[in-house]
Amino acid sequence: MTPILAIHGGAGTMRADTMTPALEAQFHAGLRSALLAGHVVLTKGGSAVDAVTQAVMALEDDPLFNAGRGAVYTSGGLQEMDAAIMDGRDRAAGAVAGILGPRNPILAACAVLASEHVMLQGAGALAFCREHGVEFAPAAFFHTDKRWDALQAELERRRLTAADTRDDAAKHGTVGAVACDAAGNVAAATSTGGMTGKAPGRIGDCPVFGAGTWADNATCAVSATGHGEYFIRHAAAHDIASRMRYLGETLEQAANVVVEELGSIGGSGGLIAVDGQGHVSLPFNSAGMYRGVIGVDGVARTGIYRETLVA
Amino acid sequence: MTPILAIHGGAGTMRADTMTPALEAQFHAGLRSALLAGHVVLTKGGSAVDAVTQAVMALEDDPLFNAGRGAVYTSGGLQEMDAAIMDGRDRAAGAVAGILGPRNPILAACAVLASEHVMLQGAGALAFCREHGVEFAPAAFFHTDKRWDALQAELERRRLTAADTRDDAAKHGTVGAVACDAAGNVAAATSTGGMTGKAPGRIGDCPVFGAGTWADNATCAVSATGHGEYFIRHAAAHDIASRMRYLGETLEQAANVVVEELGSIGGSGGLIAVDGQGHVSLPFNSAGMYRGVIGVDGVARTGIYRETLVA
Repeated sequence: MTPILAIHGGAGTMRADTMTPALEAQFHAGLRSALLAGHVVLTKGGSAVDAVTQAVMALEDDPLFNAGRGAVYTSGGLQEMDAAIMDGRDRAAGAVAGILGPRNPILAACAVLASEHVMLQGAGALAFCREHGVEFAPAAFFHTDKRWDALQAELERRRLTAADTRDDAAKHGTVGAVACDAAGNVAAATSTGGMTGKAPGRIGDCPVFGAGTWADNATCAVSATGHGEYFIRHAAAHDIASRMRYLGETLEQAANVVVEELGSIGGSGGLIAVDGQGHVSLPFNSAGMYRGVIGVDGVARTGIYRETLVA
Repeated sequence: MTPILAIHGGAGTMRADTMTPALEAQFHAGLRSALLAGHVVLTKGGSAVDAVTQAVMALEDDPLFNAGRGAVYTSGGLQEMDAAIMDGRDRAAGAVAGILGPRNPILAACAVLASEHVMLQGAGALAFCREHGVEFAPAAFFHTDKRWDALQAELERRRLTAADTRDDAAKHGTVGAVACDAAGNVAAATSTGGMTGKAPGRIGDCPVFGAGTWADNATCAVSATGHGEYFIRHAAAHDIASRMRYLGETLEQAANVVVEELGSIGGSGGLIAVDGQGHVSLPFNSAGMYRGVIGVDGVARTGIYRETLVA
């Protein structure tokens, strides 16, 4: 069953008026590339933590997804990115919040994981990244007209106090990966630009360990995507681990219960989870979630809506 | 048994060479004042969330404790404060990280709790506070010679790569409060300047919900103090809640197990916890923890080392 890797590229309402068959195909292709980037690590005997790093880097590099290049803009017209990574072997963890500069925010999180710190924010986080040789990119690298236009539309909507028309990527865009390697070690990584028009300085669930990101060999690895505030107030990722550890629930049972509970309190979104035996669960309570899985057969299977994953 | 309030003012090694009977008396007096500030809210029928706010404000105002006025300095010579508050009624939560300006950081966290956000950092958090009428104080208000000198000593130690001589307040200083009001509602609040000489931008467990701060009427309210990175990697506060919810453990059992587990992986410190029946637990695995409890009898009981609390 192992090694295995699962990824997500955000969850949401998947508005039909902004989706075309061509765009759908692009999403499937982007997910497939990320799955293969992580899978090659695992097939070479690499660790889960390296696999999720490579998969998230691929999603960050793809401007289709709201993380790294193509991240959304804050209400102040800037991009502020959060990223987190956790290694299930020893629960070593690293996260950055509110940064613009590192080409791949997940590599900034990896640098924090390797340090005495667990979480760094803002200018201090950037100084740390420079000291630790994390590669930077100019601001223009991260820009996409699509995200900029989305911010202008959102600001205009607020002026008119009209109904919220932000698409799912704008509201719930996050990317993430979870993996179980051949040795049964699990890891999780999450990266995001947050919500279009978010308040400057806003931190969502991504870098909050136990909320949007968690990994512990004894239970599971989880990466979440959705309305982050609810995932924090629910300690969503750690709640799945706790149900497995203390109630003896399977990964599937625990992940489904938590996503259902989140939905019942207004916390729309979903998550991907894997345990040390290579079981995978990808529940969501929204209309769809960009997602994919790749196992020992090396076939990348991806999905957007409630359909069965397709190869 | 209710209403009841417990507070802490940091945990650590309590080095004998920096403690005098006069200083001990000051700590007891500071703790007592904070207990009374929270207790008066509860006796007037106020909510747990208001009581913990008042208690933490008193500790922030007292320069003896590492939060608000008298917060420690980062390696960059600035003060960067974190604060968090959570209401057990609906798990509404608010936190700020890396701020210098709001006179009482816990009131900044309260403003975030009342908004659509859960966590704000840095300049964005300060802008939010200004918009929401949070009172600011000049930088000089927060300064104490003692903390500034502690930073100089720490920087000198690093130049000499000598043994770590930071006292407990410099390493584990945090203040916090938990309460259960007459209606059985619980709440938790935590506030800190972090560690003396911490990297700019470093976020500890205080504003990470589920790690250093948690409140849920169904289980308990927790505020932690200690080596924050370990508390994050253990999801310490939420783990106590999970053990109560899923294993049926009492507050005392769950809190003790988690603090013991933290100690076994190198996570020194302690925490205060209360449940909806008014049970209180104040475990720590370090030599001491500044702490206190006040119940229906209105008698403030405080302690520093492993002695029984004294009135």
